[in-house]
Amino acid sequence: MFSRSPDSVGTLLAGIRGGQIAALARAITWVENERAGFQKLLHSLLEDPFLAGAPGARVGLTGPPGAGKSSLVRGLAQGFLAQGEPVGVLAVDPSSPFSGGALLGDRIRLNDLATHEGLFLRSMAARGSLGGLAMNSHEVLDLYDAFGFSRILIETVGVGQSELEVAGAADTVMVVLVPESGDAIQALKAGLMEIADLFVVNKADRPGADALAREIRTALHLRQGETSSGAAPGAPPEWIPPVVQTVAHRGEGVAELLDAVAAHRRWMEAHGVLERRRSARAALRIRGILEREARRAARRSLDAPGVLAQALERIERRRGTPYSEADQILRALGWGNAEEGKG
Amino acid sequence: MFSRSPDSVGTLLAGIRGGQIAALARAITWVENERAGFQKLLHSLLEDPFLAGAPGARVGLTGPPGAGKSSLVRGLAQGFLAQGEPVGVLAVDPSSPFSGGALLGDRIRLNDLATHEGLFLRSMAARGSLGGLAMNSHEVLDLYDAFGFSRILIETVGVGQSELEVAGAADTVMVVLVPESGDAIQALKAGLMEIADLFVVNKADRPGADALAREIRTALHLRQGETSSGAAPGAPPEWIPPVVQTVAHRGEGVAELLDAVAAHRRWMEAHGVLERRRSARAALRIRGILEREARRAARRSLDAPGVLAQALERIERRRGTPYSEADQILRALGWGNAEEGKG
Repeated sequence: MFSRSPDSVGTLLAGIRGGQIAALARAITWVENERAGFQKLLHSLLEDPFLAGAPGARVGLTGPPGAGKSSLVRGLAQGFLAQGEPVGVLAVDPSSPFSGGALLGDRIRLNDLATHEGLFLRSMAARGSLGGLAMNSHEVLDLYDAFGFSRILIETVGVGQSELEVAGAADTVMVVLVPESGDAIQALKAGLMEIADLFVVNKADRPGADALAREIRTALHLRQGETSSGAAPGAPPEWIPPVVQTVAHRGEGVAELLDAVAAHRRWMEAHGVLERRRSARAALRIRGILEREARRAARRSLDAPGVLAQALERIERRRGTPYSEADQILRALGWGNAEEGKG
Repeated sequence: MFSRSPDSVGTLLAGIRGGQIAALARAITWVENERAGFQKLLHSLLEDPFLAGAPGARVGLTGPPGAGKSSLVRGLAQGFLAQGEPVGVLAVDPSSPFSGGALLGDRIRLNDLATHEGLFLRSMAARGSLGGLAMNSHEVLDLYDAFGFSRILIETVGVGQSELEVAGAADTVMVVLVPESGDAIQALKAGLMEIADLFVVNKADRPGADALAREIRTALHLRQGETSSGAAPGAPPEWIPPVVQTVAHRGEGVAELLDAVAAHRRWMEAHGVLERRRSARAALRIRGILEREARRAARRSLDAPGVLAQALERIERRRGTPYSEADQILRALGWGNAEEGKG
């Protein structure tokens, strides 16, 4: 009542329609902070036939810290811009107090590019810890689509969940390794084979690059043998992830990488794969939105006056446990859980 | 109907009451997998006056990878065992496919101890990525309490959220640094000062240990000056976190560390701090349980036959967006959100 924001869903929509970068930046901040009405803004954007016409081609990059992902993002962005494609970059940074300065250094180098017309960069802190996507990063990518970026680059540090999360957000997933990542084959075993559409051996001027590329190709070949023998008749021809060697900070190999990304896209479009990936992504999105809203509703119910204080008092007097108190709040909301019972 | 588990809430409760390690291990697996009835098991444990009598003293350790936390856990556990206190260890491991073998090596060294009578160790994968606590780790700690471990050690890799999470789970928080962690002061600025009850400078036989300890003490002194000037009259005397130097793999300094842990506990008990921490923890627990159950309910509603398929069809035909579909499911559940509206 006392302060009124100058932004409304309508003004932000108009700003994004009009190609105003400032409106996009403000909309991202809205979504990051989950300001009241952010769901409506996002729904309106996706519903608007003008804005929701052609989602951007999304390329996700993941790999260990220090693999040179930011340099690759820079090279790919320059390539897309040279092709006349506007580029949105979402860089998900680890939020560790212990992490060194290397990631920040990369980020600064990438920011040099950000003054370029047609390029927009946003960094978000990873939800939790090193790796993974940020909270509401899917929503920010929706905003990128709506703003009209025809190419979207998503950069994450590849630890833990982030591979799976980036695979859920991108059309093309690039796994970046370097000759020093001696545990590459272990990484391949740990599920990266399943999500990688492209492998990049970066810092390929260092010893061991050829050997690493060979190891990856061998592993891919073995895997292909396994799956193709069981392929259904009429299935689309399998995509065999290319292994591209780059020296990203000198721009070497980036043209080949751009070609590989384009080839992967053509393959997806020709065989209905892109459509299937988008449908799978929509399912993930519905699930994510539902879980977020359920969490928000639960939080609101606990924040109602007196609710928490009374629960804590009962626990202190040993007349309840956190489980029975949570259960009681859920039941009051009408969310009773059939599986559950009180002791 | 076809397979029946030999375990029920009743048999597990009886087993835990009877001090059977196997029953504890099976109960942990139940909780980790969120098998039907796990909430009831936990509620019953906490409600049972025999089992819920005296929760264990919880010590959390956090710090950068390679700081020697596992060696410290080993030393502390040996010390507690020598004092006749049974010890439960919860080690939260990063789940990165890229992480090296060092952590695994530590774990193996710790496992040597695990055959010792009175010691139980469980490793859990961190939720998401490097650091943080594991999914349902609070619940596993409840099981430790109920089993009667009078000392509980919680080891996490200190990145991102994990400091805050370990502070929410432990009575005494130990931040472990090593002379090489050159960014120690940066770490101190990043919020560790607020959560650390004890600082450990491990690998204190290496150059720079004294300097690091001095830096920490100076930072603590500056901070103390800030806070004590504004202290309320009658407030308990402030706890000044001691800085203990250790060479954990040789056991040096561990006795001093055990003394410091005991002193912190006496200070907490004397000034009502332990009670307040436990109450704050109960509040966090209620919130966590509510959010988890809300998420589970949302997931169940989406998994009902046809719900997801119909939503995806509407999205494909551009008659809905993930936002409107999620909203519709929430409304059907009666969880309408007043803040929200459809475009």
